[in-house]
Amino acid sequence: MSWGLSNLPYGVFTRREGETPRVGVRYGDHVLDLAAALHDEVFATGSLNAFMARGVTAWRETRTLIQNRLSDDPAVTAYLVPLAEVRMHLPFEVADYVDFYCSLEHASNLGRIFRPDDEPLKPNWRHLPVGYHGRAGTVVPSGTPIVRPSGQRGAGTFGPSARLDIEAELGFVVGTPTGLGERAGRFEDHVFGVTLVNDWSARDIQAWEYVPLGPFLGKSFATSVSPWITPLEALSEARVAGREQDPEPLGYLRRERPWGLDLTLEVRLNGEVVSRPPYREMYWTPDQMLAHMTVNGASLRTGDLYASGTVSGSEPDQRGSLIELTWNGTEPIKLADGSVRSFLEDGDTVTISATAPGPGGEVISLGEVSGTVRPAR
Amino acid sequence: MSWGLSNLPYGVFTRREGETPRVGVRYGDHVLDLAAALHDEVFATGSLNAFMARGVTAWRETRTLIQNRLSDDPAVTAYLVPLAEVRMHLPFEVADYVDFYCSLEHASNLGRIFRPDDEPLKPNWRHLPVGYHGRAGTVVPSGTPIVRPSGQRGAGTFGPSARLDIEAELGFVVGTPTGLGERAGRFEDHVFGVTLVNDWSARDIQAWEYVPLGPFLGKSFATSVSPWITPLEALSEARVAGREQDPEPLGYLRRERPWGLDLTLEVRLNGEVVSRPPYREMYWTPDQMLAHMTVNGASLRTGDLYASGTVSGSEPDQRGSLIELTWNGTEPIKLADGSVRSFLEDGDTVTISATAPGPGGEVISLGEVSGTVRPAR
Repeated sequence: MSWGLSNLPYGVFTRREGETPRVGVRYGDHVLDLAAALHDEVFATGSLNAFMARGVTAWRETRTLIQNRLSDDPAVTAYLVPLAEVRMHLPFEVADYVDFYCSLEHASNLGRIFRPDDEPLKPNWRHLPVGYHGRAGTVVPSGTPIVRPSGQRGAGTFGPSARLDIEAELGFVVGTPTGLGERAGRFEDHVFGVTLVNDWSARDIQAWEYVPLGPFLGKSFATSVSPWITPLEALSEARVAGREQDPEPLGYLRRERPWGLDLTLEVRLNGEVVSRPPYREMYWTPDQMLAHMTVNGASLRTGDLYASGTVSGSEPDQRGSLIELTWNGTEPIKLADGSVRSFLEDGDTVTISATAPGPGGEVISLGEVSGTVRPAR
Repeated sequence: MSWGLSNLPYGVFTRREGETPRVGVRYGDHVLDLAAALHDEVFATGSLNAFMARGVTAWRETRTLIQNRLSDDPAVTAYLVPLAEVRMHLPFEVADYVDFYCSLEHASNLGRIFRPDDEPLKPNWRHLPVGYHGRAGTVVPSGTPIVRPSGQRGAGTFGPSARLDIEAELGFVVGTPTGLGERAGRFEDHVFGVTLVNDWSARDIQAWEYVPLGPFLGKSFATSVSPWITPLEALSEARVAGREQDPEPLGYLRRERPWGLDLTLEVRLNGEVVSRPPYREMYWTPDQMLAHMTVNGASLRTGDLYASGTVSGSEPDQRGSLIELTWNGTEPIKLADGSVRSFLEDGDTVTISATAPGPGGEVISLGEVSGTVRPAR
């Protein structure tokens, strides 16, 4: 069972319009109303943040408590709400949002596409996980319509993006903060769980604006996240050694414990699978991203979100963006309905899902993040 | 008088340790306690955000009310707290932080320093205000010590930054939000006021990391802001036509009203003036930055901060960063105590202040933002 006792992801739901959102845990096709089941008002504050701020010991104790109640306490059924009766919301208030660039294949593919005569990777890429800050205020929950952005696509050229793309990513949600000037400790003491991220990208806007200060309006119109935050403990069977790195990273980036993750993402365009990116092939692991992000003393806040960057594997059907899948539009995808796609068209729906191995051959589902493209205004 | 009835900037203060910070308005050497004077609990919420969210009509009415009370009501003196008895705090909760790059001289100087054989400006620079997102969680109030960041300064090289710098900037604080997919309306309907910004920069970290996704750890360790938010209405006498632009910007960047600002910044290093950057020479005006930032439908939140980028004028003693003032360290500054500086040393204090013309020959002070460099940990 994909949503059993070994999964139990956290989300935020309402049953009625206007109600303050409540924290729940998904169990099968139901949501366990935690504020009611555990008599704890931290789960009735509208987001996961207050609970996440309690820290790793509280996270573990709460998970064990929920597992025990669901296994042993028949009375708990009174607090199980059918999924069909709830609406899911943004599960946490996003503090800062950072996007990394951790797939060797993705970074190499983009280098080959944009700079065919140069080395595909920039000199810094194998030395540090390259990243940048994105717009936290436009992180939206799965299902939010994505209005095609307009902008400059070159000198004197303005209009709706003609090269709207997706990026299939994994996001990490920070629970335990640090102070200014400190470095983060162990990954599992700071990071509460993971979410799926679609980092929508307007390639034409991005290509014109990004030199020398990086992506801005080509990304800031929307970033979608999945409704269920999978706690790290649910991913214990998915942990693998990170990919071998050459050169060996500097000391502060040394991996102390295995935080590679054997997740398989799936990207569907209008229902049809177009890619299955393997997360385990990522070059930089999330513990390394966290160490890097804070090595300069930058503080963490509860609700910080950092994402892996596009997950692309070594095979063509494992690429996590259309610009790679269609090789910058030169090799359009053919869909089952006979149409072709270089980039997204109005009305297209993109859904990214993921699974991980669980205990005893079970499958842990991470759910999905979905969005439909609306015409430019 | 620099802090008279035509100025009246907003800040957030406490009189005692542990007290919830309150919003006040500076008047001379006093702070008017607004929650008490106006019997309005919006000023006792710990930050300016709730008041800013009320919108431009409320901002104007409140300012008039305060001016009337200070002029006509002797009883108001009961709510004036001596500045010496208060501690100032971060005046608003920062939602997203965006940093632009709007000085033609600054962008040109950096181009000449880093790419002496190329055109100093990138092809996009005169077509749009180049900008990127910074870390909102490390925006700190004036007076916060700045711990020298450590990081990678090249392949295999790690250590404290040896090229710690400042950037003297003007910041704009958003009060009125917009929805996802909308564009911002008039500048003065969204922006509540201005603050002084020191965008501390580790040039060696930044130079190694920033290709291709922009600055990250070279900036994210700290950004300091001044305690007093000057409302736009206090700057009415400072408004000037923006600098002439060639080529003429696209329609969405057209200036409808003059929002050039005749402010003069002053940068002091250990008390000694090292630069007086003129804000009126900036190429892109703040109304253009706002229009650009939202043209793709990115929403605004109350508390969004966007900064101008380093303010540098055409004269050598008008440059707003040490990398320009010392031409990348090749022409060190000589200080009055006989020492020289290429970049900042531990113990150095940098203070940025600014003034603007007020009505009838008055001077509007914007106060100052200050920080002292502490050794790396």
